Amino acid sequence: MITSPDNPKLKQIRKLHTKRERARTRLFVAEGEDLVAAANVQPEFVLRGGEDVDPKLLDSVSSLGSGTRVIGVYPQQWSEPGGDVSVYLHGVGDPGNVGTIIRAAHAFADGPVIMGPGCADPYSPKAVRASMGSIFARPPARASFDDLPGTRIAYVMDGPEPAPVDGPVVLCIGGERFGLDEVADRAEVKRGIPMRADAPNSLNAAMAATVALYEQFRMARHG
Amino acid sequence: MITSPDNPKLKQIRKLHTKRERARTRLFVAEGEDLVAAANVQPEFVLRGGEDVDPKLLDSVSSLGSGTRVIGVYPQQWSEPGGDVSVYLHGVGDPGNVGTIIRAAHAFADGPVIMGPGCADPYSPKAVRASMGSIFARPPARASFDDLPGTRIAYVMDGPEPAPVDGPVVLCIGGERFGLDEVADRAEVKRGIPMRADAPNSLNAAMAATVALYEQFRMARHG
Repeated sequence: MITSPDNPKLKQIRKLHTKRERARTRLFVAEGEDLVAAANVQPEFVLRGGEDVDPKLLDSVSSLGSGTRVIGVYPQQWSEPGGDVSVYLHGVGDPGNVGTIIRAAHAFADGPVIMGPGCADPYSPKAVRASMGSIFARPPARASFDDLPGTRIAYVMDGPEPAPVDGPVVLCIGGERFGLDEVADRAEVKRGIPMRADAPNSLNAAMAATVALYEQFRMARHG
Repeated sequence: MITSPDNPKLKQIRKLHTKRERARTRLFVAEGEDLVAAANVQPEFVLRGGEDVDPKLLDSVSSLGSGTRVIGVYPQQWSEPGGDVSVYLHGVGDPGNVGTIIRAAHAFADGPVIMGPGCADPYSPKAVRASMGSIFARPPARASFDDLPGTRIAYVMDGPEPAPVDGPVVLCIGGERFGLDEVADRAEVKRGIPMRADAPNSLNAAMAATVALYEQFRMARHG
């Protein structure tokens, strides 16, 4: 039973809250029973409060305000871009949005979420948590806009409403303010999400991506 | 220029971070230029850093880690349940989800988001922020399940896929674990969100509500 805050495993968990350490070690932290249960790779180690470590010490290295019963450290997995439907994120800086979009792609697409510039680290604690475990089932990918594996469909405000496109597609989603302007001009297709006349002038990136993914899946089923 | 941390306005902002004080005063706090710009009611007061108040003092009462340039205090508005399409939330305890759903209803529905039991306060700072200002345009409502204004459509896992329903509808969305079990049995209609065969076994409440609202709007347009 670990009872010292200087224990190397506890120290490592603490360090892995920083992007730098995650990039250096290619490891990440999953907190909580649900995430640890969703893991499909061999952990570096798993610590359970009361079994392997003093529960208070485990809480002290948790990124959750409420503490946690279990923390696992895992190797990051990265996918190759591909699939009939994938998602490209550009300037989506909020880790909760990134994790949510990984969850949505798990529900509605066969391809990965591809991280472009200006995005939050999908292996940050917040993104991992928001993915609800889908980060394991559907590891993210990295690619530049020029190398995306299919017809690039940029979702923009007031774009034409969704309609089928032949062949593999990549749904391109921009972050709130940053937007997708620089990318939209170079995409093969533009689309928008139809909304009410008195609708707000934007959705957040996770909502836009979820609707775009759902609509793509729906069209593929119903033609 | 306010330079004392004991200033009554600063004290009030601090207190309004608690649900109890919001319930007592029926006021709430909106932080940041975008939210204050979205306000459509007379504020109790608005404080701008550098104009009305020492910027550091304003940051000290902000609920945002990064601080803020402007904070406004406003009276809470509540809608009556109604509309052709509204949303009923049951056990949605995450304020970010509640705010996001208020945003989604603003985009896709004419009726309000109706708060059932076990939901986060839609006027909490996190919910207000996640609504991206839609809390002003589309104030939430309160009602019990028995008093909902239309056909109750409970969204459940593996429910039949969306299909049109005549007359006013209320999309009923349950929180993650809490679920909608106790409500689903009493709803007139059950629906599910179609997903891939290897999809995760749930979406978060905000994603489910956003898709349900989008689909309802889409069906109304395309019949």
